[in-house]
Amino acid sequence: MKRGERTWAFPTPPVILATGTVVGPDEGEGPLAADFDLVHPDMELQQPTWEKAERLLLEQAVDIAISNAKLKKEDVELFVGGDLLNQIISSTFAARTIGAPYIGTFGACSTSMETLALASLMVASGAAGKVLAGTSSHNCTVEKQFRYPTEYGSQKPPTAQYTVTGAGAALVGASGDGPKVTAATIGKVVDLGIKDPFNMGAAMAPAAVDTIQAHLQDLGREPGDYDLIVTGDLAGVGHPIAEELLKRNGVPLEQTTFRDCGLLIYDVGRQKVQAGGSGCACSAVVTYGHLLKRMKKGELKRILVAATGALLSPLSFQQGESIPCIAHAVSIEA
Amino acid sequence: MKRGERTWAFPTPPVILATGTVVGPDEGEGPLAADFDLVHPDMELQQPTWEKAERLLLEQAVDIAISNAKLKKEDVELFVGGDLLNQIISSTFAARTIGAPYIGTFGACSTSMETLALASLMVASGAAGKVLAGTSSHNCTVEKQFRYPTEYGSQKPPTAQYTVTGAGAALVGASGDGPKVTAATIGKVVDLGIKDPFNMGAAMAPAAVDTIQAHLQDLGREPGDYDLIVTGDLAGVGHPIAEELLKRNGVPLEQTTFRDCGLLIYDVGRQKVQAGGSGCACSAVVTYGHLLKRMKKGELKRILVAATGALLSPLSFQQGESIPCIAHAVSIEA
Repeated sequence: MKRGERTWAFPTPPVILATGTVVGPDEGEGPLAADFDLVHPDMELQQPTWEKAERLLLEQAVDIAISNAKLKKEDVELFVGGDLLNQIISSTFAARTIGAPYIGTFGACSTSMETLALASLMVASGAAGKVLAGTSSHNCTVEKQFRYPTEYGSQKPPTAQYTVTGAGAALVGASGDGPKVTAATIGKVVDLGIKDPFNMGAAMAPAAVDTIQAHLQDLGREPGDYDLIVTGDLAGVGHPIAEELLKRNGVPLEQTTFRDCGLLIYDVGRQKVQAGGSGCACSAVVTYGHLLKRMKKGELKRILVAATGALLSPLSFQQGESIPCIAHAVSIEA
Repeated sequence: MKRGERTWAFPTPPVILATGTVVGPDEGEGPLAADFDLVHPDMELQQPTWEKAERLLLEQAVDIAISNAKLKKEDVELFVGGDLLNQIISSTFAARTIGAPYIGTFGACSTSMETLALASLMVASGAAGKVLAGTSSHNCTVEKQFRYPTEYGSQKPPTAQYTVTGAGAALVGASGDGPKVTAATIGKVVDLGIKDPFNMGAAMAPAAVDTIQAHLQDLGREPGDYDLIVTGDLAGVGHPIAEELLKRNGVPLEQTTFRDCGLLIYDVGRQKVQAGGSGCACSAVVTYGHLLKRMKKGELKRILVAATGALLSPLSFQQGESIPCIAHAVSIEA
């Protein structure tokens, strides 16, 4: 990374050896259902609490990724995890089960690419040989923590988003078969003063634009150099804003090659998900499940995933603060 | 890092170019007061809320570190931050002010060395030239979030610890004057089943022992190779447990060279801090203020800081979970 830049371009790109994706019933009724490794028929997973169910989602995604790589738990040298829950308890308790050295992160819904970027840096720099990146979210744990007690069944405005129930994990190694992580662009906090937690997409859109532009500029690339650029979870309100902002900034993206994980994961018109999906798992399962499968089929050769995160807390909102946002982007090539 | 190990030994060790330490009134009445850059006479810092005061502590520590390095904000290429508050809002809002690309982390009170380890890896690997590591804690924000409403003034058992009000930041660069970060050992989650959140020291002691032993083993070193080994915040209950465990495991440490930041920062008998200090800022300000000053004076040549973290949340406690703990250790040499 040169001074003034924020992209790590890996001279010897690390490889995504395998992934694991687990989702809940709503995601299982969405258009990408067939791309996920495991679809649960309910939100509880036979656990006594939703938080324990979320932890299990992450543990299962991790187990599947390790198993898909034909490796064992003991082969994982580091686990880089994070999630939306206070003190990232899903990741921490999963780390206890995994048993590997653990780096806990928080980037709200950008955690998917924050963890993949860090895991890739560790492998690319030789700091570790096999590093697991993983994240999770659960509609019910997030609703009760960030919004209202879930039992209230409170109504939501159409700008609100629906938290994906699921978990995604990627095992990154120095060599082997699989798509390569060629570069990662670290996000800056962007905050244009939006205070409405039921309109996260609009709040996060400028952060996505900022990171995508920085990525292209740092690497001297054009949008056309990518078969697909996806944002994490801007959904129906935020994604068109990002598109408009990029256009105004002289970086026009085609609608066919600029998509959003929050819009891909659900059939937004048919399913009751307001503006679309959100949550740490949203970009994780869409990338590790759907997009990497498309790469494997040869449909996509180079993609950029700009995972977006709204870094507010209920307390910062109550104290009148606006919503600081971030986006971390990772470039993956077949 | 070799397989089965968890220590990053940096062939070209990054340098701590400068640090900034800011504390509150209790720390200003402790034995290390003269070692901190800024001591506030009250906990409010003229802010409307304690959370905003905590954020300001971190912003001030960062400003001081940058100024002590005779650099400008624009020279910071990355900020690696984290804190104890839900969604690490202190770090995130500070990151908004700093303006640099931002990696958010969570390791509870181990965040000080988690951020220093990551910042050092980024510099050592050439991923960035100048990286800022920083963390904060505030007695009142943490009390209300993790324990009881602060106004209750609830009584505490003598095993409880007192959260340090303060912030510490270190600016890490590839070359220059200053102590070198020679190695970092990443912690595993260790959980021996302790469930009492008023006895964090006992819960965290085995994690500290695990990481210290892994560090020594990975590098083929003896305790005597260090002038000082400090734990983060085990305090009066946890630190003797760690000492005893190390002794039983055949790694005897001398009382003169095995200390704890939570015991160093306060005059534990005189000040009303129960078993001693805790909080992300505890090991940060003791290391970046006190210990690095001792290194500069030539009193210490090689130290190991094993910052300890209790990764529970109030919710995980309420759901009957035990306390998962971790310790990240960084070796610093003059």
